[in-house]
Formats: sequence, C-alpha cells, structure tokens
Amino acid sequence: MYPESVEELRRRTRDFIRGTVLPAEPRPGQALNLTVRRDLAQAAREAGVFAPHMPVEYGGQGLALEHCSPVFQEAGYSPIGPAVLNCMAPDEGNMHMLNLIGTGEQKKRFLAPLAAGEISSCFAMSEPHPGAGSDPEALATTAVRDGSGWRIDGHKRFTSGATFAGFAIVMARTGADGATGKGAPDGATIFLVPMDTPGVRLGAPIHTTDRYLPGGHPHVHFDGVHVPGSAVLGEVGLGFTYAQLRLGPARLTHCMRWLGLARRAMDIMLDRANTREIFGAHLSQLGIAQEMIAQSCIDLETSDAIIAKCASLLAVDPKAGSALSSMAKVHCSEAVYRVIDRAVQLCGGDGVSDGLPLAQYLNEVRPFRIYDGSTETHKWAIARRAVSSRRRAVEGGEPFQGAVHNHDGER
Amino acid sequence: MYPESVEELRRRTRDFIRGTVLPAEPRPGQALNLTVRRDLAQAAREAGVFAPHMPVEYGGQGLALEHCSPVFQEAGYSPIGPAVLNCMAPDEGNMHMLNLIGTGEQKKRFLAPLAAGEISSCFAMSEPHPGAGSDPEALATTAVRDGSGWRIDGHKRFTSGATFAGFAIVMARTGADGATGKGAPDGATIFLVPMDTPGVRLGAPIHTTDRYLPGGHPHVHFDGVHVPGSAVLGEVGLGFTYAQLRLGPARLTHCMRWLGLARRAMDIMLDRANTREIFGAHLSQLGIAQEMIAQSCIDLETSDAIIAKCASLLAVDPKAGSALSSMAKVHCSEAVYRVIDRAVQLCGGDGVSDGLPLAQYLNEVRPFRIYDGSTETHKWAIARRAVSSRRRAVEGGEPFQGAVHNHDGER
Amino acid sequence: MYPESVEELRRRTRDFIRGTVLPAEPRPGQALNLTVRRDLAQAAREAGVFAPHMPVEYGGQGLALEHCSPVFQEAGYSPIGPAVLNCMAPDEGNMHMLNLIGTGEQKKRFLAPLAAGEISSCFAMSEPHPGAGSDPEALATTAVRDGSGWRIDGHKRFTSGATFAGFAIVMARTGADGATGKGAPDGATIFLVPMDTPGVRLGAPIHTTDRYLPGGHPHVHFDGVHVPGSAVLGEVGLGFTYAQLRLGPARLTHCMRWLGLARRAMDIMLDRANTREIFGAHLSQLGIAQEMIAQSCIDLETSDAIIAKCASLLAVDPKAGSALSSMAKVHCSEAVYRVIDRAVQLCGGDGVSDGLPLAQYLNEVRPFRIYDGSTETHKWAIARRAVSSRRRAVEGGEPFQGAVHNHDGER
Amino acid sequence: MYPESVEELRRRTRDFIRGTVLPAEPRPGQALNLTVRRDLAQAAREAGVFAPHMPVEYGGQGLALEHCSPVFQEAGYSPIGPAVLNCMAPDEGNMHMLNLIGTGEQKKRFLAPLAAGEISSCFAMSEPHPGAGSDPEALATTAVRDGSGWRIDGHKRFTSGATFAGFAIVMARTGADGATGKGAPDGATIFLVPMDTPGVRLGAPIHTTDRYLPGGHPHVHFDGVHVPGSAVLGEVGLGFTYAQLRLGPARLTHCMRWLGLARRAMDIMLDRANTREIFGAHLSQLGIAQEMIAQSCIDLETSDAIIAKCASLLAVDPKAGSALSSMAKVHCSEAVYRVIDRAVQLCGGDGVSDGLPLAQYLNEVRPFRIYDGSTETHKWAIARRAVSSRRRAVEGGEPFQGAVHNHDGER
Repeated sequence: MYPESVEELRRRTRDFIRGTVLPAEPRPGQALNLTVRRDLAQAAREAGVFAPHMPVEYGGQGLALEHCSPVFQEAGYSPIGPAVLNCMAPDEGNMHMLNLIGTGEQKKRFLAPLAAGEISSCFAMSEPHPGAGSDPEALATTAVRDGSGWRIDGHKRFTSGATFAGFAIVMARTGADGATGKGAPDGATIFLVPMDTPGVRLGAPIHTTDRYLPGGHPHVHFDGVHVPGSAVLGEVGLGFTYAQLRLGPARLTHCMRWLGLARRAMDIMLDRANTREIFGAHLSQLGIAQEMIAQSCIDLETSDAIIAKCASLLAVDPKAGSALSSMAKVHCSEAVYRVIDRAVQLCGGDGVSDGLPLAQYLNEVRPFRIYDGSTETHKWAIARRAVSSRRRAVEGGEPFQGAVHNHDGER
Repeated sequence: MYPESVEELRRRTRDFIRGTVLPAEPRPGQALNLTVRRDLAQAAREAGVFAPHMPVEYGGQGLALEHCSPVFQEAGYSPIGPAVLNCMAPDEGNMHMLNLIGTGEQKKRFLAPLAAGEISSCFAMSEPHPGAGSDPEALATTAVRDGSGWRIDGHKRFTSGATFAGFAIVMARTGADGATGKGAPDGATIFLVPMDTPGVRLGAPIHTTDRYLPGGHPHVHFDGVHVPGSAVLGEVGLGFTYAQLRLGPARLTHCMRWLGLARRAMDIMLDRANTREIFGAHLSQLGIAQEMIAQSCIDLETSDAIIAKCASLLAVDPKAGSALSSMAKVHCSEAVYRVIDRAVQLCGGDGVSDGLPLAQYLNEVRPFRIYDGSTETHKWAIARRAVSSRRRAVEGGEPFQGAVHNHDGER
Repeated sequence: MYPESVEELRRRTRDFIRGTVLPAEPRPGQALNLTVRRDLAQAAREAGVFAPHMPVEYGGQGLALEHCSPVFQEAGYSPIGPAVLNCMAPDEGNMHMLNLIGTGEQKKRFLAPLAAGEISSCFAMSEPHPGAGSDPEALATTAVRDGSGWRIDGHKRFTSGATFAGFAIVMARTGADGATGKGAPDGATIFLVPMDTPGVRLGAPIHTTDRYLPGGHPHVHFDGVHVPGSAVLGEVGLGFTYAQLRLGPARLTHCMRWLGLARRAMDIMLDRANTREIFGAHLSQLGIAQEMIAQSCIDLETSDAIIAKCASLLAVDPKAGSALSSMAKVHCSEAVYRVIDRAVQLCGGDGVSDGLPLAQYLNEVRPFRIYDGSTETHKWAIARRAVSSRRRAVEGGEPFQGAVHNHDGER
Repeated sequence: MYPESVEELRRRTRDFIRGTVLPAEPRPGQALNLTVRRDLAQAAREAGVFAPHMPVEYGGQGLALEHCSPVFQEAGYSPIGPAVLNCMAPDEGNMHMLNLIGTGEQKKRFLAPLAAGEISSCFAMSEPHPGAGSDPEALATTAVRDGSGWRIDGHKRFTSGATFAGFAIVMARTGADGATGKGAPDGATIFLVPMDTPGVRLGAPIHTTDRYLPGGHPHVHFDGVHVPGSAVLGEVGLGFTYAQLRLGPARLTHCMRWLGLARRAMDIMLDRANTREIFGAHLSQLGIAQEMIAQSCIDLETSDAIIAKCASLLAVDPKAGSALSSMAKVHCSEAVYRVIDRAVQLCGGDGVSDGLPLAQYLNEVRPFRIYDGSTETHKWAIARRAVSSRRRAVEGGEPFQGAVHNHDGER
C-alpha cells in the first residue's frame, strides 16, 4: 500500500540495519561509541539509506512524512539505528522544522551540516518547575531586543543531546510589554543559538532510564546570551505555533521508531518460544504464552494502522492530524511498552538480566509514555476535544442522544 | 482518504440513519417490527442508500469492500440500521458469497431477491456439540449423492435468521468414502436449500442476549432433505475454502457495523457529559470521566484504522488479509464492548436501565466477542501464525535474536 | 479462621443451597415465582439457615457482620439464594438498620415480620434528576411537620422491591427553615411508611438488566403523605448519618452475595473445562483458558480477603471500615463481573445463550458496578481521602517524599 | 487486628526506618555501601528492630510469620530497609529454613552468625539452561557420596548475594543410581557449603535491573567440592520438599517487603499531588490522577489483605497456604509494579529521571514478577489446581454445573 520506491527503500534499510548495524550494537546498558556511530553513518550513506526523511539535495532519501513509517520502523529495529541513519530525535524534528521555516541562510548554516550528520542539535524547551513543561505557556526563559539582536536569559532542562550539540533551537518568551519584548508580538519566539555562544553553559546532566545514546538530557543555562536578529527562526512571536507544527510529526516519528524496537522485542520472544523453554522451563505453558504473543501482535498491528492513518491525515489536514496524533501517541507508547514488557516476562530471568537486551529496551521506551506529552496529558486533551466537538455538533443540529426515556413524568 | 463518491454515499447514509431510522427505533429490549422494517427499507431505496455493498445491477450502491467501512459505520449507528439497509449479517455475507461464486441461475433465483430485500436468508454452519463450532472440521451434517441430486441430513444451531429465511446456505460433509460422498472430493460442500424444502424443520429457538432483530438463532433440522445438483454452490468439496472466503470479509463488516454502534454509545455518553451530572451527581468527577472518554476515543480510532488497513489488504492479498482480519476482529470486538461498557458506567443508574438503550447495546454486542471465532480462538491462531512465521524467517536467514549473552561459559 | 459455629452454619447453608435451592431455580431470564419463594423460605427455616444475620429472637441465626461472609457467599451461590434465606437487599440492610436504631415498638411492628419473611420492604432514597443520586445531599423529597406528625412529598425512583413491599424506609429533607422543617435540625430524616398509606403511589417500573427477582425498581410517589411522629426512625435530622451507617455494611454484604455467584460461574467454567471443549472446540486452547481461570481464582481470593479485612475493621472502627468498604466494593464488583465475563467467554455460544445461566448472571451483576456508589464515584472519594490523609500526615511530621534531587540549582 | 506487641514493633520499625534509614539511603542507581550497612544494622540492634523474624535467642524480635506483614512492610518502605534489619532475601528465607530443619551444630555454626548479621548467605538453586529454573526437577548439579562425605559438581546462576556470602545453601541431585547417589534416596539434597571451600568458584556476575544491593546475581561453579556428611541440611533426598517449605513463606515475605516499597512510591506521588503540578503542569488534570491514585490504593489494600489471609493459612494448613501463596505472589507482584509505574507516570519527567527514586524502584521490583515463580508459571499452576480440584469435587458429589439446557434434543 506504499509506492514501490518506498518499499525499496524499506528493504534497503532493513538489509542495512540487520546486516550492518545489529552486529555493531553496544552491550545492554552501554552507550553507542561516537566513532562507531560515525563509521556506521558513513556506511549508511554508501548504502543509500542515510537521512531517509531529508530531501535529496541535503543528502537524504526524500521520503514524505506519510511514507516514513515502514522505513523508520526498520531503522528502529535497532536501538541505535535511527541515530546511525540520522533520523533520531531531536535532530530529525529539528531538521523538519528548519526545512519548513528556515531562511536560505539558516538552512545553509544549520540544516545542511545537520542533515549531513556533521553536527548535531538540541531542542531547548522544557524548564525546571514552574517553567515550561507539559504546559508550554508557562515558559520562563525570555528574549528581549538588544540592539539589532536579542538577549536570551533562562534555564532549560531535559535538553536531550545538548552535550554534543553544535547548536540549540531555543524557545523563549518575547512578550508585548516594553520590559521584555519591546513591541514584539506577545508570545514565544524560536532562536537558533550555536552552543559556543558566550553565556551558553551546559549544566548538570539528568539521567533518565535510557542508555543507548550518550550525553543524557542535561540542564542548559542561557545567561545574557546575545544573538543577532538573523537567529530568529520563522517570525517573532509565533514560537508556539511552530512548536505545534514540529510536535505533531515529531510525536508520530517517535511512534514509528519505537514500534520498530517493539518488533525487535517480538522477534526475541518468538525466537525464544521457538528454541527454548519459556517462563523458565515449562513448554506446556505455551498456552499462556500464546495469549501474550497474540496480544502483542495486535498491539503492533493496531499501532502500525493508527500511525498510517495519522500520517496520511497530517498530510491533508494538519489540524485534524495533530489531534489524531495525540491518540496515536498514547496508543503506540503504551502498546510498545506492553510488547517489550511481555517479551521480558516470556524470557524469564534472562529477560531482566543483561544477558538479553530486553530489560534495557524497557528502560529505553519507558520515558516515551511521558515525553512529547504524557499519556495522561494527552488523554485530558483528547477528552476535552471530544466533549466540546460533540457539543458543537449537537448545537449544529445533530440529534441529541442523552434523553432518558420518560418512564414516569421524568424527563 | 476515501474517494469523493464514497464520502457522498456516507453522508447520504448518515442523513438517512439520523433523520429517518433513529426516530423509528424500537424501545430497548423490543424487536424491530417487520412492517416497520419494510417501510424503512423502501425509504432507504428512495434515498439511494439501500444495499450499499451490492452492485448497482442488483439495486445496490456498488461499494467495494475496501470502501465499505465509513458507510457501514453510519449504518451501524442505529442497531436496526444495517437491517434496514439490507447490509446486516448473515444476509450481507451470503450476498457477498453468492455474488462471488454463484452461477447465473443461482444469482437470479437467490441473490437477486435477497439483494432486493424481498427475502432473507440464513447460514447453517454451527452444530450442537460435538459437531462444527469453532472447529469447522468437526462438521457432522452430511450430504450424499442421491440420484442426480443430494440428500442432506444433519442438525444445525445458532442459525441466525432462520425463522424468517427464504433459503439456507448449508454446509455439509461430502466425504471421499462411498458411504457418504460416493466419490466426491473429501471435505465439505455448500448447498442452497429453500426453507420450504421437505425435511427442513425449524427447531427450538436459542435466545442469546441480543434483542433488536426478531427470530433468534434457532436450531434447524435437515432430515433426508433432497436437493438437486444445481443446489451446490461453487464446487463440490470446496466448502471450507468458500467458508474462509466468506469469513474474512464477513468478520470485517461485523467490525464496521458494531463500530458504528460504539460511536452511538460514545455520543450518548458525551451528551450526558455535556448536559447533566455523570456518575450520578458529581460534576467534579469529570476527571475520571475524561480517562474513560479518552480511552474510548482511542478504541474507536484504532478500530477504524485497523479495519481500513485490513480491508485494503484483503483487496490485494486475501490470505494475508484474512490473517489480519483475526487481529482486527479481536481488537474491534473487545474495543466496541469496552466503549459501550464505559458509556453504561458514565450514565449511572440510567445506563443499566431501559431509560437509555446502552444496557441493551451491551447485550447486543456481547456475543460478537464469541461468534465468528471467539477472542481466544483467534488469539490461539494469531500466536501460532506468529510463531511459525518467525521460525520460517529465521530458517530463511533472518538474524536469530534469542541468544543469551555468554556471561560465563553459558550459551 | 472463623469460629466453628460459623463454619457449621456455612456448611448447613451450603447443603441447603445446593440440595434444595439449585433444583428450584427459575430458567435464565425468568423471575422467581413468589409461591416457590415462600415454600423455599419455609424449608430454609426448617433447615436452620433462615435469616443468618438476624438475632435468634427474630428467628435468625445470630451471625455477626464479621462472620457473615462465608455464609452469604454460600447463599449467593444461587441467584435466588439470598432471597430465599431472607438476607437479600434491600431487606437485609433495612433489618440491620431497624435493629440498630428502631424503637421497641418499631421493631415489633416492622422488624419482626420483616425478619420472619412475612412482609418485605424497600428503601426509598434515589430520586429523578436533579434529586438525590450519588450525591444524597441533593435530596428533594421533603417532610414538614403537620400537627403531631409529618407530611411527606416527593418522588423516588430505583426503589427496588417497592412493588411487593409492606413498608418503605423513606429519606426526606427536614430543613431548619420554617417552610419545610419548622425548627427541625437541618438535614434529612428517615421515616417508616407503610405502602398502603394514603398518598403513596407506585409509579412506572424501571427495568434494569437483572431478572431473577420480580418487581423491578419502580418509581414511587409520595403526595401529601401523612405519617405520625412515631414514623421517624432514629432522630430527626440524622438521616444522612444513619444512611452512612447502613451503607458501609450493606455495600459489603452485597460483595459477599455476589462473590458467591461468581463462585458459581467459576464452577460452571471449570465443569466445562473438565468435560467438553472450550472456546467451541479446541482442547488445545486450554492454555489461553488457563490464564482466564487463574486470573479468576485470584479475583475470587483477593475479593474474599478484602471483604474479611473490611468486615473485621467495621467491627472495631466503623469510620475506617466504611472508608475501606469503598475499596472493597470497587474491587469486588469489578472482580465479580470479570469472573462471570470470562466464564461466558469460555463457554462460547452457550455462554451468551439461555442454554446456560451465565449471560443472565452477567446482567444480574452489571448494575452492582453502579449502585451503592459507582466504581468511579468511589474512586473519586478514595483518591480524595488518600490525598488529604497524606497531606495531614506530612503536616504532622512524616518525612516529605516529593523533593526532586537538586541536580543543578533546581529544587 | 494484630496483637499489641506486634503493633509496637511495627511502630518502632516505622520510626527507625523513617528517622534513621531514609536519610542514609544511596542515590538512585547507587548501591548500599557495606560500611553504612554495618552502622545502620548496629543502630537497628540498639533500636530493638533487628531481625524481626528471628527468635529472641538469636538476637531477633520473635515475630511469627503470620505477624510479619505489618513489620516487613515498614522495613520495605526503604529499599535498603530489609537489608539493614537483616530480613532481606535470600538471608531471611535461609534463616527460616535453618531454624526449622538445621541441627544444633548447624544452627550454631551457620544460623547464629547469619541471624546476628555477622555473615551473609546465598541460595544456590537456579542453573543455566537446561538445568533447574522454574522447573526444579531439571536439577543438573550432582552430589555423590565420597568417603564419609559428598562431592558436589555443578554450575549455578542467579545466585543472589553470592559475592559476599559466607556460605551457600546448595541444592544438588542425589539420585538412587549408583553413579550419582550410591544408594541415596532419589531426589535432591540440600548442603551447607562455606564459600571458601576448595572448588567453589564465583563466576561472572549477572546484572539484573536492581541496583540497591551490591554484588549482583552471579554464576557460581562447584567443581569437585568436597563436604563432610554434616553438611547435609535435613534429610538426604528431601531437598525438593524443603525447598517448597522455604518457598511458600519466602514468596510471601517478598510480597510484604515490596508492598512496603509500593507504599513509599504512593507517598511520593501523593506528596507530588499535594505540592506541585502533576503530569507536568496541569492541576486541572487531577481527575485522571484520581483514577490512578484510587486504583493504587485498591492495589495496596487488596495486596495487604491477601498477604494477611495467606500468612494465617500457612500457619494452620501449610499445603493450602502454599497454594494460596501462588495467588498472593501473582497479585502482589503485579500490583506493586502497577503502583510504582503509576507513580512514575504522575511525576512526569522527574519520574523517569534520577531526580526521584521512582524509576529505580520500578527496576528494583521488575524481576519480582519473574523470580520465585513467574506470574505465568504460577497462573499455570493455579489453573491446574482449580481444574483438578473441581473435578474431584464433582466426582465426590457436588452438583455438576456444566449442562446446557436442553433446547432441542440437545444435551
């Protein structure tokens, strides 16, 4: 159901990941060595699978978002695959954004080397309490006009990839009031800030449960950082709009990649079922394993289906697609976790040990139920949209369904 | 993502169901009156929404299976909608089968009046223990050659629609041995048997928890029923193959229709949330309702997505599509039940009373987790397919994933 | 772990239910015939198992609440068992209440014949929207002083048992203001009202999904009903307090009885597993059945354990016991439903038909997830209690656990 | 509902854990320093809370198993609490076993210093595939008579605590045949083997997801290890019986300790709910949090109840108690995991980072769903017991419940 060219790229990617990347994976709990990553990236370029989502002019394979899923799933079959193919978060979402709204000059300076894998980047959005978290409106980092440029002050955290990044995409408040915004539209503005700009300082790392990619998710401090006017990405004051633009697709590509890792976990549990005891020793317990295997198949296929539906919708109706991406994100992040959790269980003691990579996979995906909007935050938004959309429909003439049959003079 | 002509038919169907069918629905617990059904069917013909899945030459709207979902969901929004539109089980699956493998004569005699809604039909497959149930191979009803025709003997049950049917599609064993099959290929054969054929006798009804359609799911006895050679549908001995052919799509159209009813339940709970207390009285408990509403949205959308994926696949690869239809059936039947169950819960006392139709909806869909293959039967098949498919892949060269890292001389 | 006398009564009850009651059960979907009920009740008296929870002086077996669980579970093994033993809701809770706070005269007139099974009763609490439902404070029925007595006006619904009741226990608002209460304490008061009092009128029945006991859950109207001062149960103005007093134990005895029915469903599914195919035909699918059977065992045993814990706690600390009864009620009502639902599933087509009683059992217990406080209403209350209780503990010196480790100048 | 002396010890333990142990806990991901452990153990002795389950003569507090739960839950409130109090696995179960079946000499040499916390121990049971795992019968390690003593050969793994152990309790096969057992009863025998015995060699460590206690779960090799006849614990050939004897209670004390940690996670999430945003920022999402908090309360209380029931039963009927301990283990291990998982979720990004200990708690308890019998292995056993116990009951005269009502000549 995908064009043949996409299917070809998928097969190439599959062959590359299984033939070249799998043998080079670090041991569970270890991080990908940067030299190994560089070598594998070069091999990916030569294999014609590098940067699948980027236009050919930037060295990519020219995939549209609605065709990314099969290819990204193949990439994600290895926990280091997306990094090797340069389609890992946050770089992948940053490239997407730069490509959409960057100026020619910005693309040349930031996008080209990023797409080529020469530098990496980070997305500086989350802040310590009570700043921007699930609620971006609480943004505390500020940017005020300073001569022809801007001065940025703030404190970010969970800034994945900052340790090795060449530049940061920074979200800062640029208010309407004279004090901070000097006439700028009220809201947020996005800035491109090289990490070696004076005043940018890497803070303490935050270690979350993932381990495959080095560098953690550190604090980053911006203390009186001066940037020129050309550092503004897109228009002043439209930061939140752009962030939304980035978020829908970024959320979905996360689903694609992690779904690939869930397929890996599935293969591990199936190979176990095919060759050895499960649950320790009792082959006779295969029955209970069947329940777990079947439910995992269903989790994988429904995830694949909702991703495909959402990617198609994003292409024709970004607003509806973004709303649907909330549901896709919740379903896929929970489904992926369940599949890996069942694989752990099926492999018994080996499942929780470093003799198999499953326990680390579980830790790798655990944060995905939280970042890019936690399951609960999305549910809250999904429910609110459903309730208000139905209310408008009824107000618009849809037959009201809530009336209780009049038994006894009761409405 | 559907062609505009499909979208138009969907809108027409939607308008017809909401404007004409909803006001004519029987009270919860009551069955659709046959005269009312006839009048509504006539209105459906006039509205250009009758028999959406049938070719135009048979008075239908010419929808391909892969385009049926949005239209069938609209039909299913009313529990009597599919019957009114003549796309209800078992007639819909029977038409599908007759259209695929019937002779010109059979189509004229059986399909034409069935598609036109002039007669109805039943599918006589299930038998009392230890005959054909989940395992069709246990088929106990036999057909033996008898002159130029056949003699059928057997006892069927759960024969939905038999009470009012004009004819039955009967599955019977036609073995290779002289005693039963007289040289016929070993296996099963399908026969078209008018219900007024001597020897066909309606047995006791079986009442399951559904109520909207009259007639129950009775026992039917075939005692020395003689039918001519032209009663054979398709080829002698290929009965199980045809049954599979019928089952994949029939399973999926069930999903489509019931998903429509789940959307109805969703609207009832949203209207409740918008206009009155929920859980009895506490508006402040909306939060817990949000969880239930959001999870229901996800259940609806993932069901819609897996149906669409499966319908597309059935069109290009029936075997793979049939395998996927097992997963779609499990996911949708469980999801639909959960959505209606949550709606019941949200409406409190009214939810379990006949003041709202929700408790009956729950009873209406409860059997769907069992018929057309129970959730557990499908899971068993899904797991077996996954395990053996992976084994073949590894044998074919896929990298084996089950090896435990050698800590200590251990493989 | 129960005294031997309790164990003896349990065995007697078990023998009576299995030997005498089971053979007299109505067919699924039918209601218990009142003559049959009378005969069975007489047999229960003779077998020494009648009214297990009532003092011996009232013809009961003198069980304390903390010893009721094993006996009530045996009673509930038949859906008509508790009615036959006169320990069914609402009579059982009404007896409990009358015994605790009734005057000698009230006990003689109302409790004695009720305990003896000569009359039955109802509890008139719920009202149509926007009156008393989950939130009893919304009580709309009023009682105002009228000479030496009271005049009651109001409209109740979901008044289980009203059709055949000799008297109603009526909750009515008796405000502090002159208009309604004439100096009575602000709040609610409970009245004992014979059903033949002028002005009491049975309204339309409400049918919920249960069927074993006749009479439904009708509307009852109180139009200018005059009752004497002696009709007040307990003290004027303490109605809500008494209602709470009734509710904790009543909730728990519901759990006990329904747990008995879940054990019945369990036996049905085990007998099926032991003698015939499951899921239709495949004995090989026993594995998936094992998951369902094991989970059902765990549901039964955890329910039994939390009931025992809660009954013990109610005896020594009614307030803590009542709080725990919310959790017991949620756990047991959901667990009981799951067990029966799995039994339905395991029995395939028979499970949803009237060939087995399981589908009706499912409908019988479905409302229990809603009445006596729905799962969601209880969860709301449980969460609020947990949050505020922890807040008080921390204020009282418990070490605060919510601090995030200071990575980077962050609190 | 526990004796006052137990309640006093619980309070003492609570004060000690919260006042002394919590402030000394290692950072998430770090292991307890052995010097710190020694100092805390000394403080525990002085506080009168050391070795709660051991007789007073061994320096313990003399708790019976059926009274351990409240005290062990307090100990488990800190992930290092049980180690500090010397009631951690595997030492606690080993002490229990030595106390029950050790000779006076064995108790003096092994139990006394173990109970005093002067040495630690390990339990060498699990073996690499295809040896003893879930199925102890696959035991591959052998012991053969060698002069007046025995020679042990084998390879164990997942030997928790072996790194620092003074001695191992080793399970070895002592067959009836001359080759291995030289006339010993067929079966397994348990040996007490000091770790410095020649031929005992620590193999590679296995790292599972836990981190709080140092030393991992290493491989241990026994190569021609000679031990005297006095090394046999209990009787020759009864090893499997003793292992069962150890397992039921050991399983249950695990539940108690981990339930304590789940209460800690609960307090963390409640403190978060009381003082800061949840799910990142939206206080308005408290509703969805209420669902998670309430369900966690129910998980905690049902776990507590089934533990209490099982501990009481073990005291009067070890066989029935052991069967129930399977259910308790499954319920508690899954419930504890769910509670911590919800707490992680409620705390958002901090939940998966090392800023809070929750992510490490999740990793700490993850293996408990597998060791001591995985959830699936227990379910398999629970289902088998339920099915065969019901079959025997029906054979013994219990009314059979599986008959389908005869609709139509059908049984």
